[in-house]
Amino acid sequence: MKEITIKPIGVIHTPFVEINNMPIQPLAAEGVKGVIELDESFVDGLKDLNGFSHITLIYQFHKVDGYKLQVVPFMDTEPHGIFATKAPKRPNAIGISTVKLMSIKNNLIEIEQIDVLDGTPLIDIKPFYPRYDNREDVQIGWLEKNKNLSVEKLRSDERFK
Amino acid sequence: MKEITIKPIGVIHTPFVEINNMPIQPLAAEGVKGVIELDESFVDGLKDLNGFSHITLIYQFHKVDGYKLQVVPFMDTEPHGIFATKAPKRPNAIGISTVKLMSIKNNLIEIEQIDVLDGTPLIDIKPFYPRYDNREDVQIGWLEKNKNLSVEKLRSDERFK
Repeated sequence: MKEITIKPIGVIHTPFVEINNMPIQPLAAEGVKGVIELDESFVDGLKDLNGFSHITLIYQFHKVDGYKLQVVPFMDTEPHGIFATKAPKRPNAIGISTVKLMSIKNNLIEIEQIDVLDGTPLIDIKPFYPRYDNREDVQIGWLEKNKNLSVEKLRSDERFK
Repeated sequence: MKEITIKPIGVIHTPFVEINNMPIQPLAAEGVKGVIELDESFVDGLKDLNGFSHITLIYQFHKVDGYKLQVVPFMDTEPHGIFATKAPKRPNAIGISTVKLMSIKNNLIEIEQIDVLDGTPLIDIKPFYPRYDNREDVQIGWLEKNKNLSVEKLRSDERFK
């Protein structure tokens, strides 16, 4: 299939400089502040974004090298198919995080609840709209048995480096 | 910034062969069936995915040419910044849809509630997990005034071709 070329639209600055000991999801990154530095050429694309409290970021897991088809995710002790997990070591190392939008000043976007490495290349920003993006009555497969795990305290290690 | 090269992992087959008259969101595609044809080399990555009722697909808007920084989205009659909309004519033409997972047979994944064009290149599959992916207490900016719009009946036109 034809390759797709992506040109990052900006970079995400966060307090996380190492791949271990990070929050594994936005839910586990309460209060963690970051700044998106958008390429100045895209500033006009931010019009009216400031009315949204949450935005979904698409970005590259830029420190991940290669991929595995089965992994033991942070949320379990057994291996699962990579597509049944959100682990970063995927065939296309693309991540999604919905974070809190705090402020926009020209090309700088302050965010909170961010769970990515400092210097992460940003691919896209989309507004979060619960009516379209939330789902109820959902089956969650292998996560069912781990759903009471205290993810807020769970931190990453180096397994997906 | 450094370019990112994406190699699609498969293709999404749907009933939609034209960019107009399509559902504009999965919510508007109730009962619409599609099939993901995954590259056979990735089948081992599907282990345990079948326990999930919903999966999030990342894909390319492959029929979109170029981008606009401000657009009049299907949900409004006024222009907004492209990053304050989910319109496809974006700097990186990447889409996200959370769909229903119906069955998996080897490399063929049957899905429902799919809102993309036939032949869409698939970039990634992630399991949908409400605890991480849903958000409550959300402000929705310009969408607030249109939130009672009957999106189930709204269809696309050719404005983002």
